[in-house]
Amino acid sequence: MAKSAAKKKTPAKKKGGAGDDITYKSYLQLPALLDAQHPISDVGGGRHAHDEMMFIVVHQTYELWFKLVLFELDRIQSVFGKRVVADADMRVVSASLTRIVDILKLLVRQLDIMETMTPLDFLDFRHVFRSASGFQSMQFRELEVRLGLRRDDRIGYNGQSFENYLAADDRAALHAAMKKPALIDQLDKWLSRTPFVEMSGFSFWKSYRKAVADMIEGDRDTVRKSRKMTAQARKMELEKLDNMGAQFALLFDEKEGEARHWRFSQEALQAALLINLYRDQPALQLPFRILNDLMDMDELLALWRYRHALMAQRMLGTKMGSGGSTGHDYLAATASKHRIFKDLFMLSTFLIPRSKLPKLPRNVRDKMGFRYWDKAE
Amino acid sequence: MAKSAAKKKTPAKKKGGAGDDITYKSYLQLPALLDAQHPISDVGGGRHAHDEMMFIVVHQTYELWFKLVLFELDRIQSVFGKRVVADADMRVVSASLTRIVDILKLLVRQLDIMETMTPLDFLDFRHVFRSASGFQSMQFRELEVRLGLRRDDRIGYNGQSFENYLAADDRAALHAAMKKPALIDQLDKWLSRTPFVEMSGFSFWKSYRKAVADMIEGDRDTVRKSRKMTAQARKMELEKLDNMGAQFALLFDEKEGEARHWRFSQEALQAALLINLYRDQPALQLPFRILNDLMDMDELLALWRYRHALMAQRMLGTKMGSGGSTGHDYLAATASKHRIFKDLFMLSTFLIPRSKLPKLPRNVRDKMGFRYWDKAE
Amino acid sequence: MAKSAAKKKTPAKKKGGAGDDITYKSYLQLPALLDAQHPISDVGGGRHAHDEMMFIVVHQTYELWFKLVLFELDRIQSVFGKRVVADADMRVVSASLTRIVDILKLLVRQLDIMETMTPLDFLDFRHVFRSASGFQSMQFRELEVRLGLRRDDRIGYNGQSFENYLAADDRAALHAAMKKPALIDQLDKWLSRTPFVEMSGFSFWKSYRKAVADMIEGDRDTVRKSRKMTAQARKMELEKLDNMGAQFALLFDEKEGEARHWRFSQEALQAALLINLYRDQPALQLPFRILNDLMDMDELLALWRYRHALMAQRMLGTKMGSGGSTGHDYLAATASKHRIFKDLFMLSTFLIPRSKLPKLPRNVRDKMGFRYWDKAE
Amino acid sequence: MAKSAAKKKTPAKKKGGAGDDITYKSYLQLPALLDAQHPISDVGGGRHAHDEMMFIVVHQTYELWFKLVLFELDRIQSVFGKRVVADADMRVVSASLTRIVDILKLLVRQLDIMETMTPLDFLDFRHVFRSASGFQSMQFRELEVRLGLRRDDRIGYNGQSFENYLAADDRAALHAAMKKPALIDQLDKWLSRTPFVEMSGFSFWKSYRKAVADMIEGDRDTVRKSRKMTAQARKMELEKLDNMGAQFALLFDEKEGEARHWRFSQEALQAALLINLYRDQPALQLPFRILNDLMDMDELLALWRYRHALMAQRMLGTKMGSGGSTGHDYLAATASKHRIFKDLFMLSTFLIPRSKLPKLPRNVRDKMGFRYWDKAE
Repeated sequence: MAKSAAKKKTPAKKKGGAGDDITYKSYLQLPALLDAQHPISDVGGGRHAHDEMMFIVVHQTYELWFKLVLFELDRIQSVFGKRVVADADMRVVSASLTRIVDILKLLVRQLDIMETMTPLDFLDFRHVFRSASGFQSMQFRELEVRLGLRRDDRIGYNGQSFENYLAADDRAALHAAMKKPALIDQLDKWLSRTPFVEMSGFSFWKSYRKAVADMIEGDRDTVRKSRKMTAQARKMELEKLDNMGAQFALLFDEKEGEARHWRFSQEALQAALLINLYRDQPALQLPFRILNDLMDMDELLALWRYRHALMAQRMLGTKMGSGGSTGHDYLAATASKHRIFKDLFMLSTFLIPRSKLPKLPRNVRDKMGFRYWDKAE
Repeated sequence: MAKSAAKKKTPAKKKGGAGDDITYKSYLQLPALLDAQHPISDVGGGRHAHDEMMFIVVHQTYELWFKLVLFELDRIQSVFGKRVVADADMRVVSASLTRIVDILKLLVRQLDIMETMTPLDFLDFRHVFRSASGFQSMQFRELEVRLGLRRDDRIGYNGQSFENYLAADDRAALHAAMKKPALIDQLDKWLSRTPFVEMSGFSFWKSYRKAVADMIEGDRDTVRKSRKMTAQARKMELEKLDNMGAQFALLFDEKEGEARHWRFSQEALQAALLINLYRDQPALQLPFRILNDLMDMDELLALWRYRHALMAQRMLGTKMGSGGSTGHDYLAATASKHRIFKDLFMLSTFLIPRSKLPKLPRNVRDKMGFRYWDKAE
Repeated sequence: MAKSAAKKKTPAKKKGGAGDDITYKSYLQLPALLDAQHPISDVGGGRHAHDEMMFIVVHQTYELWFKLVLFELDRIQSVFGKRVVADADMRVVSASLTRIVDILKLLVRQLDIMETMTPLDFLDFRHVFRSASGFQSMQFRELEVRLGLRRDDRIGYNGQSFENYLAADDRAALHAAMKKPALIDQLDKWLSRTPFVEMSGFSFWKSYRKAVADMIEGDRDTVRKSRKMTAQARKMELEKLDNMGAQFALLFDEKEGEARHWRFSQEALQAALLINLYRDQPALQLPFRILNDLMDMDELLALWRYRHALMAQRMLGTKMGSGGSTGHDYLAATASKHRIFKDLFMLSTFLIPRSKLPKLPRNVRDKMGFRYWDKAE
Repeated sequence: MAKSAAKKKTPAKKKGGAGDDITYKSYLQLPALLDAQHPISDVGGGRHAHDEMMFIVVHQTYELWFKLVLFELDRIQSVFGKRVVADADMRVVSASLTRIVDILKLLVRQLDIMETMTPLDFLDFRHVFRSASGFQSMQFRELEVRLGLRRDDRIGYNGQSFENYLAADDRAALHAAMKKPALIDQLDKWLSRTPFVEMSGFSFWKSYRKAVADMIEGDRDTVRKSRKMTAQARKMELEKLDNMGAQFALLFDEKEGEARHWRFSQEALQAALLINLYRDQPALQLPFRILNDLMDMDELLALWRYRHALMAQRMLGTKMGSGGSTGHDYLAATASKHRIFKDLFMLSTFLIPRSKLPKLPRNVRDKMGFRYWDKAE
């Protein structure tokens, strides 16, 4: 209702047009904003529960921040959605990502306020929610979907999909969002187009595979020739090197579909590795920063879920003995399972020391630099 | 308007009554809340300024937190407004104060988000505000007034009272608030009633004054008798002790009105000092905590103003050469001038070492304890 | 060596005695402190790894904070170790606990600095540690032991006890610490002595059990009589109430030893529940705060472990496919398993609404109050 | 002494060489580190002051962080000290700056721990310092000097230079530091070399001055022609535009020496403005980030000083009546006066809206881009 009224009167437009009557209050729509807190513990003869106001305000600020996060994500996705991403647009992507990361830090921190409430205070009004729950935050669900959390990645709650807890229109809106490319898919495409992976006769992947093979073979050789080692120690060291080789085999294996160990395509993986390894080259500095920010974001989302889980345990206790998972258990499980950009973390396993790193050919390195060094005009 | 509409339909009541239709969305009034962000930079053919949305959301979350701070202040003031404050109510006062302190920490921290905007981004839309400004935040003004900031304590802006920047109805609302007792006045009354200052024949003030006099006289004596000191050093040390004596004279001086050096009444000052000095006694533990939280609050408000001033300087620059004070200058000045509970800080000057502290008589100390230790039932 | 040298020269004593030569530098022992950072990546012809200095400083500040945490724990344990804990000492316990909580918040936050290092930067020097690891932080192990983490509660790492990673003297020191009463044991004893659980003819436990029985029976009755419910819904609701009853049975069950569901003794549990339910009474205000701070502490330790786990994953990647647990897996598991004060969280399950709460008899409530209200002197 | 001993024994080298005996404890030099806390309140029969340990640990962690800040500054200054700064080195500068900013945030935050001490607790041991004071922190002085705080910029304390409070060798060390180029000087030189200010026939400064003149003249014209304005309003608006013009005149004025309004050279100013205005161009993205981080750093140092000032006031009180500046007053004054990169903040005054911004010629914009777009190989 508030929405349609707003639309009919188009207050913003009118104000923006007229201009002279803009005040702090009207600009921020404070009358609507500050009238949207309605504790219900004392409705219908119930007992007034002081902390309900805090509970409402904390949740409302979360929703406002989610709105902003989604707004920044709009900008990021609109850049990554283009067929060619202009270098000049990268600063804007980076600025929006950094802002999202800063907001997520605040969201983790903000639970401090919620925890000024004690479990007994919460008991005073938690019955009023009945089946209502943070579970139903559409903006958070939209965020998950748009970042790339897929239906099959999700843990069920009480054996049911979270979708069962949503109203029909919300469910439909979410399904629509699921049909659009998620950020991780856009990122995959953008990474896959990175020109430097194959350029001017240089194949990054071939050089990198050779460097890895040489490194492992060199280590194996050192172990075999070492005179100080006992036979037992030598055996163990060689086993370790075998394991390392097996890990790398999973990286080089280009299986597709179900059998694939990675969410990223092989092309995107290679580019992400290249960006990590040669991040100092001018053309890779910002892409590197962006991958880094994505890891920050993923980590902060996990941290927020985990802290949320701890708070749930504190407020609601924990079922004892056998049977039934609790809100705490569910939330703690999502912290480790609902990770979207995990491939970026896994890549750390495959970094190789700078001393073993294939050197970029001069002409490739040049192409990663700026034109202003060119002599001729 | 939004307000009256809400009242007519009493949505909360209806929902609360029926119960079964409460959802996360309706409970938090998300349709109204999330429809209250209307950037105007692109209204009427203007250029879309991406960061305006962030600017709006940050300010709106500030206003939501201010609402909560005022709500907690309601509870504190309603306890302190009673003729007799029950000991059992002190936990509640302390809980609300601690919550306010935690919120203020968040508000300082939250400027991090604002500073993800660069000055050039701000330039894109700052013209749309015209005369609208954070200056007009009624909730913040109400907070200042209710804590105890008086009209005469305030620094003018551009030679005008801040009231000139308010709409007539806001001004009237503020004047009404000014007529009610502020928190600092209520605190003064509550402190003044502390029974332990004069109890069972013990006069805290007399004992304390004697301890101070003895301490200074003892130090003077030591200096006079010291053989190691040069005449020059002795003179300097004696001057320092004179200065210390002069400071204490200002504490003992019971002048009233304009001439008074303190905002607190003499009775309140004495009680506050007693609470600080004997804070380990059971009956003083919570009062001590409350005085401490009030200092936290005062400090955090100053810190928030100062950080706000730094941000204003960054966004708007600073006028060079002569003439005209800037937003930065004004905000930085309020950080040091708009302090309300400064007396509590000044008291630190008058603490005396535990070794010089008058011992509480046994019967007074007993009265500060719990009854459960009593043998007889 | 540094230690024995320090002891021989007793620099502090000498300085403290002489006094006049105390400077900022000597007081803080800056020459020793600032000479204790020795990166080794470039020793013996290795390549200089810039981030190693950061790595050292971050760990050293952690160890300094751990020292302070243990120092505050000394004070807390010395108070709780007394046969009778004086009410006046409770402020000191609370102050030390609050300080520990604040330090732990900083320690979680401080990982931000560590994460300014990228995995590739870490790769530059992580080989220098060989088997050295944070695992060997004796102060952290001592903290765990002294709070009350028992050997059998611990998760093994690579199938081995963490003790196998320690030097012999460290292991011995830890064994000695294990023989002393841990904080949780002292707390149990202190809670068990709470006088109000049985006082002046009032039995809290009896009243509480009756209130619980009445509450469940009342709900059962409402369900049975409800005409709106389908038979199916009624069955589900009754099952829920049965589950609730089964939960409470675990609380009332006073089994001992292995079969016991709680770490706390039955007496301590009852007192902790009483403190939570009647926290507004003057004599319970500080005990309530202390229980609350212990939960904060437990939660922050879990959060720190979890964030540490996320960082390990980022820096080291994650093994793919089958086999072998990683540092990340181990750390994440300790976050949920190495909880010490979990009983305090479980108690939230057993709070009952204020409206159902047994009223304290007047004479019991009086005993929880201060003596200064007494008329007679 | 500790230092020379360390050098003689070269413990790091030995350890690094042998390798197998590296443990967590030896690597972090924990024996020395954890033996460097020597409270002196109880030396020579004094009374044990519990909070002295916290006081020592907080200061020691500050000094460790300062050491790291200086270490990062080494790297930054060594890059900027080069005759030509390679683009590939810019990531490293940015990484070190970001780390410094993150550390400074922690340092502001860390005062939370110090404030768990109450003034009365501080009184228990503050006499032991005599003239020792944080004033004597050489690392902090070195930081100020190396960033670019000049002797003449400093506020005196009690009418004396801070140098009078230092030991002779420290003073000498600081004087040596003063003779080397400070970061701000290096930055000035680096900015002054920015090629894009004059390139391929494009003069940024000429275009910018013209844009400013056109903008002001256009506004003046609008005001003059406006029919809605009263004569009074018109006069006021024209005066505002005159003021704006006068501000810009100070920017265009190329006076040197004492008369100059800026610390930056004219060349550096122009480049800094260009970087701010065209920051989206690939070659300017990282320089823009670096200028931004420098502002963060400057702001955080000011915030830290200010929070420090508030803490001093809380701990020590404040002199009343006339005469004598306090630690609080001094610290608060340094917060606003000891700003080093203020010119960067002042530049915000001179940003002009994107719509008025001179367009970069195609060939100049091209030069700010990467070579990899070039068709020919």
